[in-house]
Amino acid sequence: MANARLRGFVQREQGQQSAPAALEVVAALCRQPPWAANQPWRNIVPHQKHLSCIEACHACAVACNHCAASCLQEPDVKMMARCIALDMDCAAICQLAAAAMARGSEHAKAICSLCADICQSCGDECAKHGMEHCQQCAKACHQCGQECRKMAAMA
Amino acid sequence: MANARLRGFVQREQGQQSAPAALEVVAALCRQPPWAANQPWRNIVPHQKHLSCIEACHACAVACNHCAASCLQEPDVKMMARCIALDMDCAAICQLAAAAMARGSEHAKAICSLCADICQSCGDECAKHGMEHCQQCAKACHQCGQECRKMAAMA
Amino acid sequence: MANARLRGFVQREQGQQSAPAALEVVAALCRQPPWAANQPWRNIVPHQKHLSCIEACHACAVACNHCAASCLQEPDVKMMARCIALDMDCAAICQLAAAAMARGSEHAKAICSLCADICQSCGDECAKHGMEHCQQCAKACHQCGQECRKMAAMA
Amino acid sequence: MANARLRGFVQREQGQQSAPAALEVVAALCRQPPWAANQPWRNIVPHQKHLSCIEACHACAVACNHCAASCLQEPDVKMMARCIALDMDCAAICQLAAAAMARGSEHAKAICSLCADICQSCGDECAKHGMEHCQQCAKACHQCGQECRKMAAMA
Repeated sequence: MANARLRGFVQREQGQQSAPAALEVVAALCRQPPWAANQPWRNIVPHQKHLSCIEACHACAVACNHCAASCLQEPDVKMMARCIALDMDCAAICQLAAAAMARGSEHAKAICSLCADICQSCGDECAKHGMEHCQQCAKACHQCGQECRKMAAMA
Repeated sequence: MANARLRGFVQREQGQQSAPAALEVVAALCRQPPWAANQPWRNIVPHQKHLSCIEACHACAVACNHCAASCLQEPDVKMMARCIALDMDCAAICQLAAAAMARGSEHAKAICSLCADICQSCGDECAKHGMEHCQQCAKACHQCGQECRKMAAMA
Repeated sequence: MANARLRGFVQREQGQQSAPAALEVVAALCRQPPWAANQPWRNIVPHQKHLSCIEACHACAVACNHCAASCLQEPDVKMMARCIALDMDCAAICQLAAAAMARGSEHAKAICSLCADICQSCGDECAKHGMEHCQQCAKACHQCGQECRKMAAMA
Repeated sequence: MANARLRGFVQREQGQQSAPAALEVVAALCRQPPWAANQPWRNIVPHQKHLSCIEACHACAVACNHCAASCLQEPDVKMMARCIALDMDCAAICQLAAAAMARGSEHAKAICSLCADICQSCGDECAKHGMEHCQQCAKACHQCGQECRKMAAMA
């Protein structure tokens, strides 16, 4: 069956390319968000245009919550105080934005606009710190900010 | 390059199998949560053991929010009243659980235990209705409930 | 003791004026938010300038959540669909705004600005319906919108 | 008018007793929660039995959010790390509990039960620290825990 052929192909490929890269290619070709694989119920949703942004907001919320908790474990927590505060703001607005988009709220665009600003602010602060969790959080925030700006600008 | 070979393979396969199925196989083989493809920053997180449950909670929150909004558009909304109410409860606890796990909260297990109960309750109500959004929501809730029970039972 | 004298006074007055009105007068004269009586720990908080708005946001969230649930019990739920949807948006942003102000967030003003818009929108929809819960919710939303606009405009 | 008489009375009393105490007495006599004065729309709500607990949860969420932010300003933030983490957990569950009760959720009791545990945990940690914001937060948490246990035990 086709699945077995793909299975064989990927097993041979696994040495030559990273697993994430393999997924990325398949995802791009199949034009489905990567997470759709394990969650087929997402395929039949009228909020398709929001899915990419919803996913970015969720990923950002996870990154910010994780970053805040990690900052609290740092030797010099005082230096991370503003980062933690912005992480908390950002996680909160990202969760609210994701929920509003999932509900198809009339206010989704305005909420995404605010979310983009807070993501920018949080991402910029995180970027100042060298720790892995801060660098990753900065990426997540800046990416989410981009997605939210696109959403806020949509017709 | 390896990517080009995979690209070619998948293009040939695209007729024979559904895109989601292709992703599913690759995901299973690569043993990465599907969303990891487009979000590499998730690879270096100390909350690995929670990632699967966090993802399930987020997916469930999206499904419940979407289901609630869809129910409000049904011809007979009155019949969907309990479903909408449980959707709202479930979306809220799932978001809280995801955030608590992402923060590595001391209370994550207790929260997941409550989340599992509410997911069960919401999923059972959704399953009674034949609409696509309710059937999909029921799947998301029951799957999330499973993940949360596993999390609550972990050492 | 002074308390006994006040006690006597109010007991005599109870026939002539409503209890809420009595509280209102005392509150205004004592220049304390009414809720301060049973919650003395609120007296020593550096976020005094926010307290009035925080309280309005919490009251509005309660009103909106209660209104949504009441609407779901109405005979003609379909007619209340937009009201329920806006109630959910409003409850969410009001809770977020209250939390942001309580944390002294850098983004509190921007959040209050958005909150004011959503409160206006929800209040206007609620005002169209004659049910008690909708009329009360409209009052809560419009009052909260006012408080949030004041907060957003503060130096 | 009665209001003028009460006004005169309280003005004379203001020297002899604290304003909060005056409010407390009037509140007790009038058998209205103090906040009812400025928010008459709360008088006509079918969730009367929840109001006291909803108010406690909101007050607790404010205290915890405020405590977390204050801890981040302490000279030795590292020492406050667990307090901040629990503050974040507690604020989140208290807001969720308040919303669930306001919606008359089927799961309100189970949610209050979990909330009580987290309030106990947060309050106990806060009580270990001598700062004003921690002591006040401990009071709010322990009081909220009590209210939530009562709610969880109700018929």
